[in-house]
Parts: sequence; C-alpha cells; structure tokens
Amino acid sequence: MTNVSVVGRGITKFGKKKDSIKSMLIDACKDALVEADRPRVDAVFVGNFASGSLANQEILGSIVTNELGLGNVPSIKMEGACASGGLAFRQAYQLVKAGEYDNVLVAGAEKMTGFDTETVTKAINHAMDNESNESASGLTFPGFFGVLANRYIHEYGAKKEHLAMVALKNREYAINNPIAQFTTPVELEEILNAKPITDPLGLFDCSPISDGAAAVMIQRGANGVEILSSGQASGTPLMQEVDDLLHMSATYSSGKRAYEAAGIGPEDVDVVEVHDCFSMTEIIAIEELGFFEKGKGWEALENGLTKHGGLVPVNTSGGLLSKGHPIGATGIAQIIQIVDQLNGSAANQVENPKIGLAQNLGGTGAYSTVHLLRRKGA
Amino acid sequence: MTNVSVVGRGITKFGKKKDSIKSMLIDACKDALVEADRPRVDAVFVGNFASGSLANQEILGSIVTNELGLGNVPSIKMEGACASGGLAFRQAYQLVKAGEYDNVLVAGAEKMTGFDTETVTKAINHAMDNESNESASGLTFPGFFGVLANRYIHEYGAKKEHLAMVALKNREYAINNPIAQFTTPVELEEILNAKPITDPLGLFDCSPISDGAAAVMIQRGANGVEILSSGQASGTPLMQEVDDLLHMSATYSSGKRAYEAAGIGPEDVDVVEVHDCFSMTEIIAIEELGFFEKGKGWEALENGLTKHGGLVPVNTSGGLLSKGHPIGATGIAQIIQIVDQLNGSAANQVENPKIGLAQNLGGTGAYSTVHLLRRKGA
Repeated sequence: MTNVSVVGRGITKFGKKKDSIKSMLIDACKDALVEADRPRVDAVFVGNFASGSLANQEILGSIVTNELGLGNVPSIKMEGACASGGLAFRQAYQLVKAGEYDNVLVAGAEKMTGFDTETVTKAINHAMDNESNESASGLTFPGFFGVLANRYIHEYGAKKEHLAMVALKNREYAINNPIAQFTTPVELEEILNAKPITDPLGLFDCSPISDGAAAVMIQRGANGVEILSSGQASGTPLMQEVDDLLHMSATYSSGKRAYEAAGIGPEDVDVVEVHDCFSMTEIIAIEELGFFEKGKGWEALENGLTKHGGLVPVNTSGGLLSKGHPIGATGIAQIIQIVDQLNGSAANQVENPKIGLAQNLGGTGAYSTVHLLRRKGA
Repeated sequence: MTNVSVVGRGITKFGKKKDSIKSMLIDACKDALVEADRPRVDAVFVGNFASGSLANQEILGSIVTNELGLGNVPSIKMEGACASGGLAFRQAYQLVKAGEYDNVLVAGAEKMTGFDTETVTKAINHAMDNESNESASGLTFPGFFGVLANRYIHEYGAKKEHLAMVALKNREYAINNPIAQFTTPVELEEILNAKPITDPLGLFDCSPISDGAAAVMIQRGANGVEILSSGQASGTPLMQEVDDLLHMSATYSSGKRAYEAAGIGPEDVDVVEVHDCFSMTEIIAIEELGFFEKGKGWEALENGLTKHGGLVPVNTSGGLLSKGHPIGATGIAQIIQIVDQLNGSAANQVENPKIGLAQNLGGTGAYSTVHLLRRKGA
C-alpha cells in the first residue's frame, strides 16, 4: 500500500479581492511549495469552473506551471462545477497512488467579484443542463435549494430556525478563521429576519460570491497528513429527474466509496468539512454521509451535535456560507481545513482528531467528491 | 505490464453544424459505446476548451454520464486549450493502466460556429496568458504562427510554397474522409493566391472554426488497438519567453517522453497525426518529433516524404486544416484516425502500419500530448 500525503498548503484570503485569478493562484501555490520544502514537482492540476466566462482566461495549468518556473511538467485544468477543486485533488491523489507522479501541486481558484449580477448568475448557471426545460424555466441555484429546503421542512418537521442554526454555527467558526470572507458576529434573529433570497432561504443561508485561491502539495510517502481514500460520484444535473428530492445520490455514493476504500465508517470520523453552498445543503450532506439519520439532521443542529462538544464538528472553517465560496478553490480549501485540524493547528481546533472528511459538491448534485484523511502517524 | 486498448470509436461530421455540443457529444459517445459492445463504464472524461464562454454550458462530464444512463460513475471535464482532448485521453489511459478503472469513455467536443468573429476570437484568445503584454499587444493565434512562419522561412530557406504543400496534402487526404469539413479539391496555385490572413499564412494555411465531437472507449486488456505510451509536457504560453522561436519544447518533450516510455523511436512509427492548427505547425511538429532534422521539414514536404509512398504519412485524416478543428474534439479525432489506420480501415489507408503516433498541441506550445499506439497483436 502506497502512502500519499498532503505536505504543503497555501491559501489566500477569501472575499472581494483586487487580485487577478493568476496572481491569487501563484500566491497560494508559492506558499504550498515553500511549506512542502520545494520538492521537484511532477505535475500541476488546477480546479476551476468559470475562468473562461468570467476572467477571460483558460490554460491555468500551463500559466501556473510557467509562472512558478516548474519546467515543462504536465499540467491541466479540471472542471466539475463547484466540485472542480475536489476533482483536481482526486486526480492528483489517484495518480500519485498509482506511481505515475511523486509530487503533484493541486490548486483551485475563482475570480467572481467585479461583475454585474446578471453576468455572474449566467456564469454560475453554466453548471445546469442549459438545454433542459428546467433551465429555460428560469430556475437558478438558490431556487433549486429553496425548493429542496421547503420540501425538507414539509417532510421532516424542521423549521426555518434550523437552517439559521447552520448559518449561525458557520459564522461563529468563521470569526476565528483569518482567511474567511465574513467575520462579523451575527445573532440568530438577524439571520431569520435577513433579506429573503428564495423562501425559506434568506441572505445568510446562501454562500456568497467570492474571489480566492488555495493549493496543496500531494506527495508520495508519509511525510504529512495521509490521504486515506477518495470517492467520487456523478448525479443527474436535473431536479426533475431526481427520484427523491431529499436524497443527494452523488453525495451518498461518493461517501460510500470513500468509506469502503478506507475500510472505515462515519463513526470513525472526528472532523468534517461539507459543501454548504446553502444552509440546507449542509443538513442534507451530514445525513447522506451517515453522520445522522435521514430526516434527523435538523435535530442534530438543534442539539449542537455538529459543533465542538457535539458528535462531530462540521465546517469548522466557517464553511462556504461564511468562509466564502470561490468556486474552484472551495474543494482545496476544505482539504486545507481538514489538514490543519489533523495537524492540530486549525482555526477552531478540535481536540485531538485522528480522521477527517471533506465533501465537495458540484451543481445540484451533478458531482460529489469525498476524501478521507488521517493524522500523520495515527 | 497492463495492456490498455482502444475498443470503440465514435465521431460526428466536423464543420458548421446545427447540433448543440450536448447532442454532438451524445452521438459520438453512443457510437463508441456500441462499438465497444457496451461494457460497464467506470468513468467519463470530456475534453473541452470553450463550452463555458461559447455554449453557455459547463458540467459536460455529468451531462454526458447522465444522458447516456451510465449511472453515478465519476466524470470530469479536462481543459488544456486545443490539447484538451489529448489531455483527457491521457488521464484515462493513466488511470486504466494504474488499475483504477477498467473502462473509461473519453470524449471531446466543441461548438464554435454561429458566433460573430469577435466573440469566437475572444474565446480562442482565452488560450493566451491574458495578463501579459503579449495579449495586450493585440496578438492572436494566426499572428503568432505567422511570425513563426516568417522566422522559419528566413532561417531555413523554405518558401511559402512549402507551407502550401502542407495545406494541399491535407486537403487531398480530407477529400476521402467522410467526416472532414472541407472536401473540395484545390490546386497549389489557389492556396498560394488565397486571401491572406497573417503574412505568409493564407486562408488555407489556417485551420477553420468547426463544430464536432469524437469519443473513444479505453479498456483494460488487449481487445483493441493498444496504447503503448503517453507523453505530456507544458511550455510557456508567452512567445516572448521562448528561447528559440522555432523550437516548440512542449512538442519535443512530450514526444521524447512517449518514445522513452514505449522504448521505441520515430523510425518505428508508420503513420502520424500531428496538430496542424496552421500549415507551419505541421512542419515544426514533424521536426520536433524526430521524423526530420530541424530545419529540414520543408524539404520533406517538397520531396513527398510525409505522404503515401514517402517516409511516414502525416495527417491522413486531412488534419486540422481540412478535416476541421472543433477544439476539444481534435485530440480524440487524431486518436481515432490512428486507430483506424492500425485497424486497416482508415480513410487514406496506409499499407500495413504497425505503430502510429498522435500529437495534440495547446496554445502556442503551452501544452502538448503525444500518444503511441500499436496494431492489435502486432
């Protein structure tokens, strides 16, 4: 069995930034390279979703490789909507595990601010199947997850307050994360009375438009936090085709595959980052990943089971909701938070965690990746 | 040593098409699946460059997987400018070789017609480093390759006629290829007197704007044309950084890696597809890949060495110049032509070829992939 580890990390502050996608990528990659003690890099993988439509820039793989002076090593950009970062990380892990490469630099980035609402909404909607009547109906991502939240509330007896508890918890975590986009304290009441976006989702239930980049160095060997396994699954990009609106099959299957490959279960996991593009999505994710029974996620929130002192702390980085969601960077930023937790150096450090999980979602369940990581030497 | 083979092919006609990128992808993939005898597919990789900016559509991996009813298998889109198809093919090959998957469906597609010239030029220019002064100077891809052609002519004594010979040869091959975009016979005189694009390149020296899709099924085992090796390299995306304008280092290095991994050399190759985005690029490629000495490629054209009866037939498909260049599809279409040649069923069939080579370039040398393939049982 080949060990594969994360041996370097780099991340920019998330939020509204003046920097270009290229400069953010370079900043994050340089830090990851330095922390990894500048090994010879064998390949560069970049996760990104919308740089063509928003930043007028493709070929990010080659640009990063060239700008960092890494020589003529293979490079590539990977896309899978909001799961682009997780997908790039997975490919790198698989190829290092296979012995194709010893050191792969994996970065993710997005430049999303500075555009009018129509431009950025149109770019985000490229993550739908735009030949479908669903897209033609005017559905957007907040619309989709609003429908899902209404159904969840109807089906399982949750209240809008439980969605707000997700937003509140993640904001409280973000306050301690120096790279987070939103660090102003809020009260539950403020979240509940915020500007409505798509009923029942208000402003705090929706992840923001963000700029940012993140990078990690993946290495053959046991010199860092170990990557135990990777699970990936696709799902339908169409809401109308889903058998059960409250079952995100890609999340479930990617988790199942990662657990099976690592030979462990959710009960072994000590700290978790899930894809809370909306508050509702976090509740669905903690159910699909087996931390709580289906329809019981909201009760876990009510009982404080997903924060420090509970069953398993979720999104201690502040999550997409408050840390920010520069699409391509998100999957890598999740990995970094888990690595930090397992190294004992995280914002909102959990006590002595041994195993962590990161889940990255694309579209309305079109993609999901799950990675399990283990503390060095644990 | 694990054998990896190409066991199914699908390709649409290239050119100006009414079909969407989704429908073209599905058409090509269905044919590849049927020809491969509908194996259980373990993953789907799609090579594409500009679907976000031109077709308002990302998540092509998930869309194809879902539309074909392949279940929740991993899927992803890969981007590396005009080498996107070659990159997707390489990833699939590496992961099948590593035992991660048994069957991977690899497709490539682009929808480029139906836009005004400014829109499509802007999208294609996403393959430059747009933060550089080079891009700000107004340089476009025909501009870059025009400069290169002038330098080549100055340095090595070639004439504009030798560029025209590339265009003529590839048109003559395209006439017999049912999927080719341009099949009208032309004369050398017509090519030389065509509308100038960037001196010395005329209309026939430049690959066209095309729609199209191509797909192959890659399988563990020896049931088809065998993939011997894969080489990939990055290069600078900036012309001003190149040490020698006439040395495309990504092409050279990707070739070197593929030859070394297969334990063979250019003298063992019987049929070749190279990335002739411009007539000049074909001449550079056949030199960098070791078929002819540096500065002697034009003489090979003059002496008919790159067609039937010569040393090694190049671009028997008609090449990008006359078969067409739907960017993401190109790398896969090249593989299909080599597979057809090695199966003895190609348009412009070469006599009894044993080994073939396909080279796919991105940007002005930002990416290159080289794949070596061997006839089944050879």
